[in-house]
Amino acid sequence: MGLELYLDLLSQPCRSIYIFARSNNIPFEFKHVELFKDSVLGRRPAAGGAEQPRTGSSNSEGAAKVSVLRRVPALKDGDFTLAECTAILLYLSRKYNTPDHWYPADIQKRAQVDEYLSWHHANIRANAPKTMWIKVLIPLFTGQPLPTEKLQEVMEGLSASLKQLEERFLQDKAFIIGSEISLADLVAIVELMQPVGVGCDVFEDRPRLLQWRQRVEEAVGKELFFQAHEMILNIKELSNIQIDPRLKEHLAPVLMKMLK
Amino acid sequence: MGLELYLDLLSQPCRSIYIFARSNNIPFEFKHVELFKDSVLGRRPAAGGAEQPRTGSSNSEGAAKVSVLRRVPALKDGDFTLAECTAILLYLSRKYNTPDHWYPADIQKRAQVDEYLSWHHANIRANAPKTMWIKVLIPLFTGQPLPTEKLQEVMEGLSASLKQLEERFLQDKAFIIGSEISLADLVAIVELMQPVGVGCDVFEDRPRLLQWRQRVEEAVGKELFFQAHEMILNIKELSNIQIDPRLKEHLAPVLMKMLK
Repeated sequence: MGLELYLDLLSQPCRSIYIFARSNNIPFEFKHVELFKDSVLGRRPAAGGAEQPRTGSSNSEGAAKVSVLRRVPALKDGDFTLAECTAILLYLSRKYNTPDHWYPADIQKRAQVDEYLSWHHANIRANAPKTMWIKVLIPLFTGQPLPTEKLQEVMEGLSASLKQLEERFLQDKAFIIGSEISLADLVAIVELMQPVGVGCDVFEDRPRLLQWRQRVEEAVGKELFFQAHEMILNIKELSNIQIDPRLKEHLAPVLMKMLK
Repeated sequence: MGLELYLDLLSQPCRSIYIFARSNNIPFEFKHVELFKDSVLGRRPAAGGAEQPRTGSSNSEGAAKVSVLRRVPALKDGDFTLAECTAILLYLSRKYNTPDHWYPADIQKRAQVDEYLSWHHANIRANAPKTMWIKVLIPLFTGQPLPTEKLQEVMEGLSASLKQLEERFLQDKAFIIGSEISLADLVAIVELMQPVGVGCDVFEDRPRLLQWRQRVEEAVGKELFFQAHEMILNIKELSNIQIDPRLKEHLAPVLMKMLK
């Protein structure tokens, strides 16, 4: 049994893995998960083992439901299962010996990739996805109107992170750690396409970031880049989807809590 | 010029780096930073270059102030500077070729360390430090009474993370990835000692976690473990410290925002 990747391309970490695997010609079976349909209510195929990677049966159903938003992407390689975007990207880079620039052997360059990947969590990752929750998911799941003051607050947090991304990490280089693309750029770009998809174009009025985005698109191939982002760039169509009432019931309080 | 580490042992990421370096006999110059005194107002020695690692002069003073809580620990190795706990630990493990168990060469074991280190950010790291903010820092910096309902909310979030740490990661193993200690255990334990220091003993009523803690203490050496944690285990003495009024003014809104 070969490599299986459990992905929903609406999810930004899933997109980074998809782009990384495709652009490096890594053979894998695409196991399509519909994040807001299959997984929350446990309808995801048990055979994949991806819903509860490395988890024993003692993990309660309740805990599984609450944590589901953090449980894709997942990798299955024979008997081995793995969650967490960064861990999956690093595993693939090692197993398939991808070109050095993604995660350089040079100890200082590699440390700079690690530095970005760590910083990313509490900054870009903590702020960018909230734009989708506010503009699409909360209205969809709670039926409540768009809280505009919340959006403004989120955009302020995101702006502060983008300022650091530009001035502390990108500076005047082509990519985050220098002249070639690395995992740092990939993890960053997919996250920043989330606000773009919901109408908050973070690249507008940020020419340095926009040029960097264009270099990233070219480095992975524009066709692949836009294929991976097709769903998020058409996210508004999601509002036509019929949502299972039980799913609404479970997700609404989780989403509201995330935004507090 | 040798390796310099800029640390304040009140900070949990700093403690993991301190313990890792000492227990692996890595020679370094301890550059002591007093997080709540020196750094916020820019009084940290400029020579170290640690306050603005890899940052050009365009980084505004304001941004530096706001981001300071995330800017220790820092490493300086000749002309090379590095921030972010995980990046520093990995850099040290590679440069000083530390024993394999810390970050195993085995591709699956290594992926499991990466998986924990990534999960840690939005779970243990996102919840545990708030106990210190609520019980010590907010009263100290704002003069406001302890918000008990906030503490309860934080403890609920932390409990959910601890449940996952036990059931998804630790399971019935001695350490997170198996029979030997890794960077995952070290990064986890220092974070969980933060609530312990402020009187929220997360190991009480969690015998499996308590036994794991004891194994971690023994693996790094109890003397070193308690030396690193001496300050946090006496954190209440911090309330006697005279706080610079400008520091209060800067930190109070940051702390209140962090708790929202």
